[in-house]
Amino acid sequence: MNSDHPRESKVVNELIKSSAVELAAAIRAGELQPTDVLAAHDAHISEREPTLHAFSFYDAEGARRQLEGLQKGRLHGIPVAVKDVIDVAGMPAAYGSPIWQGHVPRSDSAAVALLRREGALIIGKTVTTEFAVRHPGPTVHALNPAHTPGGSSSGSAAGLAAGLFPLALGTQTAGSVIRPSAYCGVVGYKPTFGWIPRSGMKATSDSLDTIGPMARSVADVALLASVLTGRDYGDVSADVGRPLRVGVCGTVNWGRVDLPMQQRFGEVIAELGALAVLKDCELPAEFEGINDLHATVQYRETAMCLAWELATHSHALSPWLRQTLAAALAEPIDAYHAAIVQLQALRSRFDAFLSEQQVDVLLTPSAAGEAPAGLDSTGEALFNRAWTALHAPCINLPVGKGPGGLPLGVQLVGRRHGDVDLLRVAAHIHARLLKVF
Amino acid sequence: MNSDHPRESKVVNELIKSSAVELAAAIRAGELQPTDVLAAHDAHISEREPTLHAFSFYDAEGARRQLEGLQKGRLHGIPVAVKDVIDVAGMPAAYGSPIWQGHVPRSDSAAVALLRREGALIIGKTVTTEFAVRHPGPTVHALNPAHTPGGSSSGSAAGLAAGLFPLALGTQTAGSVIRPSAYCGVVGYKPTFGWIPRSGMKATSDSLDTIGPMARSVADVALLASVLTGRDYGDVSADVGRPLRVGVCGTVNWGRVDLPMQQRFGEVIAELGALAVLKDCELPAEFEGINDLHATVQYRETAMCLAWELATHSHALSPWLRQTLAAALAEPIDAYHAAIVQLQALRSRFDAFLSEQQVDVLLTPSAAGEAPAGLDSTGEALFNRAWTALHAPCINLPVGKGPGGLPLGVQLVGRRHGDVDLLRVAAHIHARLLKVF
Repeated sequence: MNSDHPRESKVVNELIKSSAVELAAAIRAGELQPTDVLAAHDAHISEREPTLHAFSFYDAEGARRQLEGLQKGRLHGIPVAVKDVIDVAGMPAAYGSPIWQGHVPRSDSAAVALLRREGALIIGKTVTTEFAVRHPGPTVHALNPAHTPGGSSSGSAAGLAAGLFPLALGTQTAGSVIRPSAYCGVVGYKPTFGWIPRSGMKATSDSLDTIGPMARSVADVALLASVLTGRDYGDVSADVGRPLRVGVCGTVNWGRVDLPMQQRFGEVIAELGALAVLKDCELPAEFEGINDLHATVQYRETAMCLAWELATHSHALSPWLRQTLAAALAEPIDAYHAAIVQLQALRSRFDAFLSEQQVDVLLTPSAAGEAPAGLDSTGEALFNRAWTALHAPCINLPVGKGPGGLPLGVQLVGRRHGDVDLLRVAAHIHARLLKVF
Repeated sequence: MNSDHPRESKVVNELIKSSAVELAAAIRAGELQPTDVLAAHDAHISEREPTLHAFSFYDAEGARRQLEGLQKGRLHGIPVAVKDVIDVAGMPAAYGSPIWQGHVPRSDSAAVALLRREGALIIGKTVTTEFAVRHPGPTVHALNPAHTPGGSSSGSAAGLAAGLFPLALGTQTAGSVIRPSAYCGVVGYKPTFGWIPRSGMKATSDSLDTIGPMARSVADVALLASVLTGRDYGDVSADVGRPLRVGVCGTVNWGRVDLPMQQRFGEVIAELGALAVLKDCELPAEFEGINDLHATVQYRETAMCLAWELATHSHALSPWLRQTLAAALAEPIDAYHAAIVQLQALRSRFDAFLSEQQVDVLLTPSAAGEAPAGLDSTGEALFNRAWTALHAPCINLPVGKGPGGLPLGVQLVGRRHGDVDLLRVAAHIHARLLKVF
């Protein structure tokens, strides 16, 4: 997170750096009031938001009104920001598009209802790219406003990095949780496909869209995920009780990794050698076309999901999106159905591959390097499409900064439904890496 | 369809019995105007709707206004009714629940946008059970108002049977397209999971919900499906060019089939003997628990999808739904995740089974018999859960009436993504069966 802000009080500085686990424990113990947590974050938002643009909607008064009715659950009084493709009752939902300007949903999405059931304070909506695809919103990087925060979960990642809230929801269809998390230096987790209900989310790809918990620690994403999935993740810092087994996978796009990131990846491997059994694990040849299969499925499904927008407001889509969807619709439908079938087979194959290799997780880059300069692009999903296509759970772990002073990230990928194991392994590895980077 | 209505003109009587294929051809040839098609259906709706209650929303004036802007596509001027869990811009969407009374969506669902792109006239919203689950709406059977039309796509099935519209959308999560189609004597088709985009549909089960085209002939559902899936189904009546291969599958619930339906199923088999190679094809033992796996997945996902309704309006849910969802949430999440994994394996296994058996499709009952008396229940999904769980395409074909004077139906089930083959086989079989039943 950002360094201290001299104009803010020590209390504010402490609270905005606290983890959700710490805040929740203090509130539960009566040592801290939700109103103080909100006040600290509100003060910090007033300071940072005018230049960061993490929120698409923030209403301090509305947030304060929520304090009266909070449930005394596991997230009692914890501010959670929600990416603006996920509906919150009474808050504008524009999905990053002028087409939906002024739309205010009647109901919470299922995910937000689950958060509220445990007492979360829904602090606002965060900026998304256009329909969580490519065209950027106004958010800038928390450490350097000339750089992109990544996308499409731009506001959630940048806001976490800047300390505007301790927890956030993102979504990933290609690389939209992992990449901005890597660029911003936060922990983003994309669960196994299907683990978090998507009802009330603006869909762009029925077979890929995944809601992802984002925070600043593995324990915090586990807390958030427990509430959203109904699965008890337990204490992720508990001893795993056996040596970790990590497969190192540079992926077919390794050639696109920049030199500082290659070097950091090597340092991470060196560091993990003391903690885990490492194994070189490149994916077999049958996975080679998976990034293309992913793109075929994604864009066809986005064109179908946005059929109404295309039919009635195509002039209000960004040119890139309009052209991409037109191109997708011009492809024969056979290519789409074939890709669906091939990906189903590859998903089973991936689970088997991890078993054959006798590894718990794969270690792979989250992105090619630091957040690129410029705000016209949120970067590429080079290291994310495959895992999203495989429905595999994955998590970004920050590993210090690069020569440009911006964060770098590595990604751990688990087997489908192996999310609890993944987060435990991730917590151990992150604890180790935090000592070094 | 119902017999002639003496108070209606011959023209009305003819138009409301015409197929969508016929209507579309006549409109395309300039022999018929969309305004006449609408006028005929409107007159018939005025006659039948007051006792049938097929519509949750019907606005004759609004329908007439649509005439001005229709696209000259494949469905130019064809009335299509939309089940009220699928959004239509500007038409109330209550999803069969008082919780959503007064809700008017801003946008069309993706499916409706695709229909409009081809010139369909969206004639109204049809009655669904509560959230497309179990609690019935007011619709009665078109041939006997003391009997259920089946559900959850109650209004779509009853309205087609009564001639209120030639095409309709239903949805199936357990048996909600096939069963009401069987009870009402219409053709209902549940495509392979994923073939029709669900954006803008009220979700109750992310891994099961499927939108299904409904009509009164196989050619008509194929026309509707072509528009919704982007897949060209071609001329389903074209010669298949080889003997059909049909597996006969009574299913594990055969003991629940009533005697008249058992007899009709036998007659259907006897008739098909002249047209197809028949083979006894009971599912292997590993499929035995599939109905339970389906129910585990369905109710857990419904509880997740309806998290907002449960949290904020649980008193406005039907007692049955409230109790069922509470029970689902009380089950360990492991059971749900295990069911997801088992069903994924069974889906591949089912495709392989059809290949091993060398059959194109399975023939199986659509329901246990005629529509039951009473309006408190829409019947059981005994013969539907398995195929929905398998993501397999299936279609109901009417096969005459039972001793109670109400329709009976048989179901053909194909392999995933084998929808075009399924509809061709179905068209041939239906043409044959129509001569007998």
